[in-house]
Order: sequence, then structure tokens, then C-alpha cells
Amino acid sequence: MTSKYNNVYIKNTYTIGGLYESQGPLKKYFDRLYDHDMYYGEKSLEKAEIKLLKDNISYLLKKVNYQEDKIDLLISGDLENQIAASDYMARSFNIPFLGIFSACATSGEGLIIGANFVESKKAKNCIVSTVSHNMSAEKQFRNPTEYGTPKPKTSTFTVTGSASILLTNEKNPIKIESSTIGKVTDLGITDVNHMGAVMAPAAADAIYRHLTNLKRKPEYYDLILTGDLGIYGKNILIEYMKKQYNMDISKVYNDAGTIIYDLDKQPVLAGGSGPCCSALVGFGYYFKQMEEKKIKKILYVPTGAIFSPTLTFQKESIPAIAHAVGLEVVNE
Amino acid sequence: MTSKYNNVYIKNTYTIGGLYESQGPLKKYFDRLYDHDMYYGEKSLEKAEIKLLKDNISYLLKKVNYQEDKIDLLISGDLENQIAASDYMARSFNIPFLGIFSACATSGEGLIIGANFVESKKAKNCIVSTVSHNMSAEKQFRNPTEYGTPKPKTSTFTVTGSASILLTNEKNPIKIESSTIGKVTDLGITDVNHMGAVMAPAAADAIYRHLTNLKRKPEYYDLILTGDLGIYGKNILIEYMKKQYNMDISKVYNDAGTIIYDLDKQPVLAGGSGPCCSALVGFGYYFKQMEEKKIKKILYVPTGAIFSPTLTFQKESIPAIAHAVGLEVVNE
Repeated sequence: MTSKYNNVYIKNTYTIGGLYESQGPLKKYFDRLYDHDMYYGEKSLEKAEIKLLKDNISYLLKKVNYQEDKIDLLISGDLENQIAASDYMARSFNIPFLGIFSACATSGEGLIIGANFVESKKAKNCIVSTVSHNMSAEKQFRNPTEYGTPKPKTSTFTVTGSASILLTNEKNPIKIESSTIGKVTDLGITDVNHMGAVMAPAAADAIYRHLTNLKRKPEYYDLILTGDLGIYGKNILIEYMKKQYNMDISKVYNDAGTIIYDLDKQPVLAGGSGPCCSALVGFGYYFKQMEEKKIKKILYVPTGAIFSPTLTFQKESIPAIAHAVGLEVVNE
Repeated sequence: MTSKYNNVYIKNTYTIGGLYESQGPLKKYFDRLYDHDMYYGEKSLEKAEIKLLKDNISYLLKKVNYQEDKIDLLISGDLENQIAASDYMARSFNIPFLGIFSACATSGEGLIIGANFVESKKAKNCIVSTVSHNMSAEKQFRNPTEYGTPKPKTSTFTVTGSASILLTNEKNPIKIESSTIGKVTDLGITDVNHMGAVMAPAAADAIYRHLTNLKRKPEYYDLILTGDLGIYGKNILIEYMKKQYNMDISKVYNDAGTIIYDLDKQPVLAGGSGPCCSALVGFGYYFKQMEEKKIKKILYVPTGAIFSPTLTFQKESIPAIAHAVGLEVVNE
């Protein structure tokens, strides 16, 4: 489902990078760094993740000098079971709340739902948020882990951080111009240590449908940015799109997971992942490039492996999804 | 956030009741009964839940004689970690998909998001679905359980079943007229066996804001239906609304959890719960009352305890949410 929007702008964003992200090449583009440890004064990893998200929204409100009653709607999701970081964060704000789950594609789903509420004038101001925490994700998705087990080089490293995007119907320099809602794809892969391969066909489907429905070539965009395919998944996507759709995106394409860390020096294997990987790179780094008009058109395509460890243990293959959101600098 | 809609109709619904629901007083109102066992030929409870949901959508498409390419958008959520029943179901359909999590308030969130896509003309036809399975929910939320531990009488019993609602912009006899998105409330209760008390304040907040924002009295509606407060929670809501908001809803109020089972004969303690409790009662039983014009205006208020067992074990209190959706028979 591809849509175009006329009245949806991004008022501002707020990004917080965690410990490893504060040692990476994009650290200076994040609004704040939580680089002291990974508990942030909380007693558990889950509570640390809630704090990352809650602080993010509080700081965003301060940044734009809004009281929370000016926000009509808060949309958030994360990787925790029951999207717990989002649900427990939302207790702290007196704002109507919609919880979403799309794993690492969460920010894409949130932007599309939020854009639709703003476009239809049901909401004037809507915050879309997400968070991920490396250690709470490892605990939930990779436990039990045998001591000393090496990870294969195709594994990715869950980003610790939080990001919020304030959508508004007030005219601003950057707008949400279009979107395509993803379909769930599953080509039968069962390797939870190769999510890039799992998610590439979902990204390909979303990118292909977005471009063809809008009659655009890849080069319409200055950048097509996937969420967290990593170095192996990135190449799989390029090759898959050539073979499956006869479409070459390689000239304008990058993957957030390959640029958030220094892959030569940091212990992150194939790159970053998690819902905050695409969100930190897209709304920390590239959003500032758009503000400075260095880049004018981005197709933002966060990618998610929406698998359940319970069903993976039952030998089910891994479903994936990706949503595409067109961000454009407004012509003046 | 309260909205009104002009062009959102319900084309049809499909409901499947499980084993216990097929022994309850509303069984004749469900489209289909899965009363043979609780595995439905599958090898696990989780796969049984996926089948319940997948079959439901297939049967709905048959009921309205639509091919899946006529459906622009599928929105679904459930109680499984990673909303696995919805994610794995969605692999079987070539339809753009949005996954949501709002625990037992899922159908309310789905209807509001779906109504907005239909109202804004981004989607012509949108299916909103949910599912719950008593045994997969027990396994996930109440494990480990000591053998022989009795449950307190305030406990509720998760409904097994699935429900789908087809929203459309084509004129039909029943419409979505209005909605109010809930806020997350948490009054500090930590008793996971008394969800009625946890969720009543969230329901009260949604009902109160819906009615006051639209300048309506409770009696504007023929029925205000909460999702799954159960017999104790139902009374708590009535009293709480009198005290907190000076509003008496008792003349038009009922709770789905108190009518889906025969509370005197079935082993369900305080009543039914789960995302499919409100959905089966609302879109199985009451929807048919609306089709026959016995009831013309319903405020449908599914209620959800959006807690994480991990955080409950860490002594956190339980957050809750409720969304309100106004359903009305169209005047001719």
C-alpha cells in the first residue's frame, strides 16, 4: 500500500546513543550520549531501556519547548516482549498511546501510522519513538547461550539507543512525502545468526513496490537507506533486486547497520541492528544532512525480522518485513 | 485523542470460538466453532493459535467473496511475545501488514488505526484481526506455575478464538462513527490475578474522555461494552466512574468477560479475558444485534493490561490501556 502525503512535516528529532554507539563514527550527530555504562543508574537492563526511551521523549519536548499537552498522540514500539519499554515509558506521559510491533522496522511502521493521523488532520502533533538495548535484547533473544560460543561473522550487534521524531502539520523544511507498507516475507531461512539474508527480500519487496507504484527510478532518491542488513545482507539485497526485479539500486544505496559502527575496530561482526539502528542513523545522522540540504530525498526502509524464539525452537523459518518512508526537503 | 469518522463502514466480520467458548451461551453467534480440541491438528499451542487466525481471515475472505488482492491493509495483534500469531499468520497473505500490541485492547487499537486509513482514503478495504489462545497465554504469562496452586476468584480465563473485521469506505449498514485513543494508566497495582482492578481506571479514562470530548451522556449509547474486566472489575469500573468523574454508566454498561461464559457452570472464575474476549462478544454477538437493529449505538471499549512478566518479577506495577470505538447503525 503506497501513499503520498501533502501536509506531514518533521518538526524535530531527538537521538540518544549508548555505550558502543558513542565510540562509533556517528557519535557527534546524536543529541546525547549515554556512554557511562549500560544500566544508567537503573537496577535492571529492562528498566535501563525504559529510561533511555522516557528520557528521549522528555528531552525532545524540551528541545522544541512543548508541554506534553501539545502532543496529540504517541506511537512507540521496541524489541522487548510485550513492547515493555514502550508500554512502561508511556505511563510517564499523559498522551494518547498506540503500541506497535515490527521488530527493527518499528520506526517505519510508526512513521506511516503517525503520518496518516497527521495527514487526515486527526492529530496536529505526533511523536513516533523507538528504543533498543543490546543487553536486554541479547538476554531475551539469545538466552540460553553456551559460554564461550563464538558467533558467526554474519551476526549483527543490537544498537543501544533511543530516537523520537515529532511529526506535525505545521510547515517545516523536511516532510514525509510518501510511504509503502511492507508485506511479511519468508523464504524459509532458519538461521537466526544471518538476519541480513532473512530481511533482504522484505526490503526488496518494499523498495520495488514503492518505486514502481510511484513510477520512480532508484535515482529519484539521493539515498535509499535500509535498516540493519549488515555487510552481508547489504550485498544480498543489491544482487537480489537485480535478479528478482531487474533493478539496480547500488548507486544510491546504503545500510544503516554498516555505518553506525567502525566495523574494523568495534566488536560488532556484520554491523548494527535493532530498531534504533535505522532510527539513529536516519534521524540522528542523515536528518542533519537534510537540514543542511546536503541530501534532499531519502527513502528510509527499516527492516525487521519479526521472529519468535519460541517458534524458531519449533523449527519454523523466520518472517521479515520492511516499510518504506520517503523523506524530502521541501522546495521553497 | 477523540476523532469522528464520516466514511468508515464495517463490511462484515468473522468469528471463531474455541473449546470453552463453544460451550458458552454465545456459541450460536460465532461463525465457526473449533470445539474438538485446542491443538487443531497442529503440533504446538503457538501453531494452533496461528492456525486460528489464518483460518479466520481465509474464511472472512470467502464470506465476502473477495480475493486477497482486494484488501489494501491487514492490521493484527495478539498476546504472544513478538505478536507471533499475527506475524506468522501474515506470511500466508500477500497483503501489506501492520503489527500492533495493546494486549487485550488490541482490537480497539486496530479499529482506530484502520478507520483512519479508510477515512483518509489511503485504504479502501482493511482487515483488523486478533486472536487469543488460553493455553499459549497460560504457558507464556503464568509459567512457572506450581502444581496444584489454586487461583484466586478475581482471576480471569483467557478466551480461545479469533475475530476479523473488514472495514471499508463502501456504504454499509454499520459504521465506525468515532473513537478515542487510550492513555496508559498505572495506579500501582501489582496483583497479576486481579486484572479487572488494574484495567478499570484505563477504561474509565477512555470512556470519560470519549463522552466529554463529544459532549455526550452515557445514555447516548445503547451499550457501553468493556473488554474483559470480569465480574469484580465491572463493579470497580462503575464505582470508580461515579467517584472519579461523577458519571453513572450503570444503566447502559456491560463487560464482555462476564457474558462470554456461563459463570455458574464453566471453570472461568471472574470471567473471560484476552484480546478475543471483547472481539468475539463485540463482533460475534453484538454485531449481529446491530445488523438486526436491536441495538443501534455501541461504545466498544476493549481493555488491556500491557504488562511484562519480566518487569512484574522485578516488582513493577502493571500498566493498562483501553481504547474506545463508537459503532453505529447508519440511519437511512
